[in-house]
Amino acid sequence: MTPLRPGDPVMLISPDRKVRIVFLEPGRQVETHHGVIAHDDLIGHPAGRVITTHKGYPYLVLEPSTADLIQHLKRRTQIIFPKDAAYILLRLNVHAGKRVIEAGTGSGGLTLALARAVQPTGRVYTYEERAEHQALARRNLTILGLDAYVTWHVRDIGEGFLEQEVDALFLDVRTPWEYMPQVKAALKLGGFFGALVPTTNQVSQLIDALYTHDFVNVTVEELLLRAYKPVAARLRPEDRMIAHTGYLIFARRGDETARAWAQPHLRPVAARRQAEEEGIPHE
Amino acid sequence: MTPLRPGDPVMLISPDRKVRIVFLEPGRQVETHHGVIAHDDLIGHPAGRVITTHKGYPYLVLEPSTADLIQHLKRRTQIIFPKDAAYILLRLNVHAGKRVIEAGTGSGGLTLALARAVQPTGRVYTYEERAEHQALARRNLTILGLDAYVTWHVRDIGEGFLEQEVDALFLDVRTPWEYMPQVKAALKLGGFFGALVPTTNQVSQLIDALYTHDFVNVTVEELLLRAYKPVAARLRPEDRMIAHTGYLIFARRGDETARAWAQPHLRPVAARRQAEEEGIPHE
Amino acid sequence: MTPLRPGDPVMLISPDRKVRIVFLEPGRQVETHHGVIAHDDLIGHPAGRVITTHKGYPYLVLEPSTADLIQHLKRRTQIIFPKDAAYILLRLNVHAGKRVIEAGTGSGGLTLALARAVQPTGRVYTYEERAEHQALARRNLTILGLDAYVTWHVRDIGEGFLEQEVDALFLDVRTPWEYMPQVKAALKLGGFFGALVPTTNQVSQLIDALYTHDFVNVTVEELLLRAYKPVAARLRPEDRMIAHTGYLIFARRGDETARAWAQPHLRPVAARRQAEEEGIPHE
Amino acid sequence: MTPLRPGDPVMLISPDRKVRIVFLEPGRQVETHHGVIAHDDLIGHPAGRVITTHKGYPYLVLEPSTADLIQHLKRRTQIIFPKDAAYILLRLNVHAGKRVIEAGTGSGGLTLALARAVQPTGRVYTYEERAEHQALARRNLTILGLDAYVTWHVRDIGEGFLEQEVDALFLDVRTPWEYMPQVKAALKLGGFFGALVPTTNQVSQLIDALYTHDFVNVTVEELLLRAYKPVAARLRPEDRMIAHTGYLIFARRGDETARAWAQPHLRPVAARRQAEEEGIPHE
Repeated sequence: MTPLRPGDPVMLISPDRKVRIVFLEPGRQVETHHGVIAHDDLIGHPAGRVITTHKGYPYLVLEPSTADLIQHLKRRTQIIFPKDAAYILLRLNVHAGKRVIEAGTGSGGLTLALARAVQPTGRVYTYEERAEHQALARRNLTILGLDAYVTWHVRDIGEGFLEQEVDALFLDVRTPWEYMPQVKAALKLGGFFGALVPTTNQVSQLIDALYTHDFVNVTVEELLLRAYKPVAARLRPEDRMIAHTGYLIFARRGDETARAWAQPHLRPVAARRQAEEEGIPHE
Repeated sequence: MTPLRPGDPVMLISPDRKVRIVFLEPGRQVETHHGVIAHDDLIGHPAGRVITTHKGYPYLVLEPSTADLIQHLKRRTQIIFPKDAAYILLRLNVHAGKRVIEAGTGSGGLTLALARAVQPTGRVYTYEERAEHQALARRNLTILGLDAYVTWHVRDIGEGFLEQEVDALFLDVRTPWEYMPQVKAALKLGGFFGALVPTTNQVSQLIDALYTHDFVNVTVEELLLRAYKPVAARLRPEDRMIAHTGYLIFARRGDETARAWAQPHLRPVAARRQAEEEGIPHE
Repeated sequence: MTPLRPGDPVMLISPDRKVRIVFLEPGRQVETHHGVIAHDDLIGHPAGRVITTHKGYPYLVLEPSTADLIQHLKRRTQIIFPKDAAYILLRLNVHAGKRVIEAGTGSGGLTLALARAVQPTGRVYTYEERAEHQALARRNLTILGLDAYVTWHVRDIGEGFLEQEVDALFLDVRTPWEYMPQVKAALKLGGFFGALVPTTNQVSQLIDALYTHDFVNVTVEELLLRAYKPVAARLRPEDRMIAHTGYLIFARRGDETARAWAQPHLRPVAARRQAEEEGIPHE
Repeated sequence: MTPLRPGDPVMLISPDRKVRIVFLEPGRQVETHHGVIAHDDLIGHPAGRVITTHKGYPYLVLEPSTADLIQHLKRRTQIIFPKDAAYILLRLNVHAGKRVIEAGTGSGGLTLALARAVQPTGRVYTYEERAEHQALARRNLTILGLDAYVTWHVRDIGEGFLEQEVDALFLDVRTPWEYMPQVKAALKLGGFFGALVPTTNQVSQLIDALYTHDFVNVTVEELLLRAYKPVAARLRPEDRMIAHTGYLIFARRGDETARAWAQPHLRPVAARRQAEEEGIPHE
């Protein structure tokens, strides 16, 4: 048995499937729409079971995952979707011991995922111009015990990043193409670059900027998550889904030799495309 | 500057975009189709630049990410796709310090991702019936320095897992629904369960088994990754994509109180579905 | 200039993008939330321009397409989506002169599309058990001038279809697999069969029934329609989309020689699948 | 029984699933890799059954659908995909009696679908600069008996279309935005416009041009077709799919009053977008 301890985050799910996250503290209690739950009735017991309020309503008690935390913590801005956060971690090669820059902080959803991934030996450096956004993100990470792995900067990244030779750098800003010199100054040669932008126009601008600044292995991708109704005898996708969160662009920082290497790659592609488009109306 | 060191994995990309992964060892050399590269010409230099073979052919030198390693290491079986591996890590809440069971090992792609995620303080327990598959996976993880975080079992999971109270458990086997008692004996109450199956028939069978065995928060999802040609002036998706890797099922281990809690949830769904299907021919 | 005539359907789009369809009749008027529009101000003028109500509000006047009609006509049941209706017409080879059976009628969305496609020389035979549904569909098609191309049956198709040697037959019913003998009795040898079902369980049951009853060239498909915000400088997909309308199954009616022909086809597939699933955990 | 007649197109599917289309002619024979089939053994018999070659190999005999013809007729250029052709027909409101312009002809896949849809009382006007492409398309439609419904123009559409007041107009050319004046001169007020382009850059350029030229109800969509392996006990999507054929843009021709009407529509969209992008890093 793995008992819940003071300080642990706990996800309480009401009979009508409302989700709420609380942090356990001896002597406190949760006031729900269906009655009161004492933290002391949770501490020392495992999650995965049901607790009843003083009025007799059943609440399911679960340990929240990083994905749950991203979705249910307090926020002021649009969150990153777990599907994207997960893929960013893997593509940027973020794991224990890595040093990673992120801008902007936003509500701290990706900051949380990055901090959990680099701890206990790595570090996240997060930049945000709006102090109040970052303050909220910092509070969220502090109660989760992750503040120790994060350096918080309220700063315009146009003035440059304060770190050097970081392993990976992620931009979630409106005009990522404007910060290529700053990115190159902070990211180690060969390091992992990533960005998320919502429009195709932004993708085109960023691709151009990346090639101009010697980045290589540029990829553009999007992830679509399709959920199914979990009913064995009538299995079918949900009626609606999120159709778009953003385009994910990844690249590796190269030097001028890498840029030269990339040319023959680009040329045949351009040549092939031209041929295709001259010879045939569409594919 | 972050120099490459002996033992580091290095990804060499040829002028015609063939990818090859080598582990640096002083005095050795790589024989390519375009000539020879001495490991000593890489050690002590950063990645992100181009090295030329003795015949003058340029190779791009990059540090492989976990995603690159999954795709390019030696293997005997179908690999897990990075999009799925990434999402599994996040949904199973796997990060430093967690204890995770996986079955089967296969070629070790997910084992690698799990080991990188739980280190330096957690542990992966991986099960596989076919000794020769696991041996290959173990060699791959050993040269990556990850063997220390993995316990290898050549064992039929029908006979039970050897660990208890693990934080998460993932099944990539043909008939996951047959192992629910074994899963419940190994996974802590409230712990994270996941599985990947290729057919809808398997999904239905697994959903049924999960509900029967008190699992809650059952979700069924699939991830579609769509890549774009990274050409700024002619941005468009690639012509073809992988249409299916598998259905991802996640759930949390509950107890009998959780099962009772889940009933009112299931009932209205069933009732709603029935109404829908009686009233209207389709949605 | 192509002027609107009495009897024409017209789509009126309000300043706040509400769509309304009316049929032109001299002397009548449309009462909108923003004032009155006289039919006589539309008759004799082309569509594609704006008409103002007596209060001065602008309404865009357009001729509705078949897709518009399907979406905006009065209905009691779930409609067929235009993307599916369009593909069904093409896959069932429905065009002028063809004879087609459809069951059930529902609100007549597909009936409308079929009638428009087979006129002026073909015919649609539509079956529905619930008389009041079919009555509504018939009214809709009558005001569109399509009643002449449709035969309406209020009848349980379990008792058989009343036509023979039809070119195509489409089932939009809950248990299509139960009607294979009836389908074979009505559909000409080599004729086109189609069905739409919402769940994977239904797909599996229908596939089995089709093979059992000598159908060949069985395909299962789904169509996903993704809309973009039509803004040139910020092109991006809409945030949400319909994730599922139904699985489309098409097949051709064969005889016992066709069934024998299909066996070697099925065998290698089964063999290949078995090999895959024994050799590798998943794809 | 519906017997095959001289002149009918017939689809022959070999034991190894190779598809071939022939047109029946008394006295002729088909030479296959597995032996000879006499047309006279097909004429007078129904489709949907198996014929054996003189060497005893079984071939399945089916009437080809419009979709089959598009995919299997001789061609020099990329074909239109049936999913797109079907949706274009419905969105452009093409059915018996309509007059439709298409440019370019290409290999005539869409021409075929349009001709089948407008016959016996409508007409297709198709434009192509490359005479040899159009000649092939014309031969294909002639043997299908559809030449009577098509007017063939070898002509640069920059010089204008030769028809006026057509009901619908479709552009499958590289730079559709360059022909807006020509389109407006040929398409009736309120008429249906459509285009297919492969890149997002082209979509943005076309949207801009459409708004500038008073088009309204502009939509941008893409259709994804996902096929499943038709195996009842192991239902699953195919491993790979076509990820992109093109973006479909539809609009209606308006006049200057329509343009004014469209402004308030565009303004709130722009305002909303601006708010979103200022307030939140992404969606």
